Amino acid sequence: MEFKQTLKQRANQVESLLKEYMPSEEGYQKTIMESMNYSLSAGGKRLRPILTMEACKVVGGNVEDVIPFAMAIEMIHTYSLIHDDLPALDNDDLRRGKKTNHIVYGEDMAILAGDALLNYAFEVMLSNSIDKENPNKYLKAMNEIAKTSGIYGMIGGQVVDIQSENKQISKEKLDYIHNNKTAAIIIGCMRAGAIIGDAKQEQLDKITKYAKNIGLSFQIVDDILDIVGDESKLGKKVGSDIENHKSTYPSLIGLDESKNIAYDLIQEAKDSINSINKETKFLSDLADYIIDREY
Amino acid sequence: MEFKQTLKQRANQVESLLKEYMPSEEGYQKTIMESMNYSLSAGGKRLRPILTMEACKVVGGNVEDVIPFAMAIEMIHTYSLIHDDLPALDNDDLRRGKKTNHIVYGEDMAILAGDALLNYAFEVMLSNSIDKENPNKYLKAMNEIAKTSGIYGMIGGQVVDIQSENKQISKEKLDYIHNNKTAAIIIGCMRAGAIIGDAKQEQLDKITKYAKNIGLSFQIVDDILDIVGDESKLGKKVGSDIENHKSTYPSLIGLDESKNIAYDLIQEAKDSINSINKETKFLSDLADYIIDREY
Repeated sequence: MEFKQTLKQRANQVESLLKEYMPSEEGYQKTIMESMNYSLSAGGKRLRPILTMEACKVVGGNVEDVIPFAMAIEMIHTYSLIHDDLPALDNDDLRRGKKTNHIVYGEDMAILAGDALLNYAFEVMLSNSIDKENPNKYLKAMNEIAKTSGIYGMIGGQVVDIQSENKQISKEKLDYIHNNKTAAIIIGCMRAGAIIGDAKQEQLDKITKYAKNIGLSFQIVDDILDIVGDESKLGKKVGSDIENHKSTYPSLIGLDESKNIAYDLIQEAKDSINSINKETKFLSDLADYIIDREY
Repeated sequence: MEFKQTLKQRANQVESLLKEYMPSEEGYQKTIMESMNYSLSAGGKRLRPILTMEACKVVGGNVEDVIPFAMAIEMIHTYSLIHDDLPALDNDDLRRGKKTNHIVYGEDMAILAGDALLNYAFEVMLSNSIDKENPNKYLKAMNEIAKTSGIYGMIGGQVVDIQSENKQISKEKLDYIHNNKTAAIIIGCMRAGAIIGDAKQEQLDKITKYAKNIGLSFQIVDDILDIVGDESKLGKKVGSDIENHKSTYPSLIGLDESKNIAYDLIQEAKDSINSINKETKFLSDLADYIIDREY
């Protein structure tokens, strides 16, 4: 319970920062800014920006330097949700209890708002990297984010997920989807944070392992919760994976084995991050939180 | 006629380079690479990459350095066409005589292929900028491209264009659309090329003026050709602006005055570029080509 409050505080901090980085709603093209900001303001746990900033902090970096990158990550995450919700993809009218972007602004504007947020993420990172002391470091950090957001990361995972609908797939393919659709961008944002924080190679490796493990565990726990979760606590319907004949960790290797793997991944993540020998309590608690969510 | 051949040669050179920079079609996510490459290979004049490279050359820069940026610009241009053609936007089944992306790969994949191309453009620029001698220069160049592709450039222009359909608009607003939908990205890519070519401020200003003028003139000529153009030469239907009650230069200020403005803009563009006192014949001829296209 206490950690949940810490997490909520961090999310609130991200909310305030986001407001500073959102484009002003003005000019002939005002509608697109409104549409972008509508989805950016729609809430969520803000895990990715929190992790970006914490990765920088944990290696002794200056968190101020990484804020534009944390904001950019949330913009990229938000664009992917807007496009995911479109009629041609998941066709969702609601997200977190609010109308989805295309329901409010129309499909045309929602497509452009997604494009605009992806583009704006790079505008924010770039304009805050020019003329800094170590420009190469910022290029490297941006490259981590770009790589893990694209066809060798998040988009790649989405594509394979879409093509696997209503099909039995191998565990190898399921791991590909989990690792790319969710874990990749967590790895990318934490590596970016650590690089900007001047992480040593060893620290960077440890953070990468942590990010990879919590990312995969997060998805496995999602699979598990779809079977054993409490709808009222989750705030969403359970059992939809079975209904949609979706291959999941429990369907491929059983519920108990899935729980064991999710647990082991979290243990390894904690060991990895704690071996950095800095103030890693927040990231360690966060790893526990991922597996303890609601079962 | 001779310049058209030079232009075709340059376009062929871009085609070969693009092949080197396209993602390999492999892995579980292969379909998305196929979809991206389908549209990247669909032809076109390749004006933007040609201009990027020429801007670098004309200030005495090393064209090799700018090639990844020229390829990225074409990826950004291509993504904007894929998304423009979607049913929720222009709903076009054909482009340059070929089926549009969503007709071949489906709407879901076309949305993701557009996203992927925009993201990949930054991947290509970033991975080719890291560990270079002057990283700040590459950050600046990328920033020019990001800025002019987003809500303060191309996307902004698209939004206002969509919202102005079937409406009478002011010349000020029409200029906003023309300057942002087309000219902005031409300015962005030429400035990026010049910056990577180590342009002096004075050279950069002259190139910016050239880019701005040919960009706007290009759109005015498009407006004019929709009235006086020869369908067989243009390869597209004329008269569609009048049919769609679209505000254009000729509808707002008359045909003759539009021609005068387009001509003056080109003259100024040529004066600006020629005053650089380098080998500017190609860019000067290109300016003439824009206005002489087919009327």
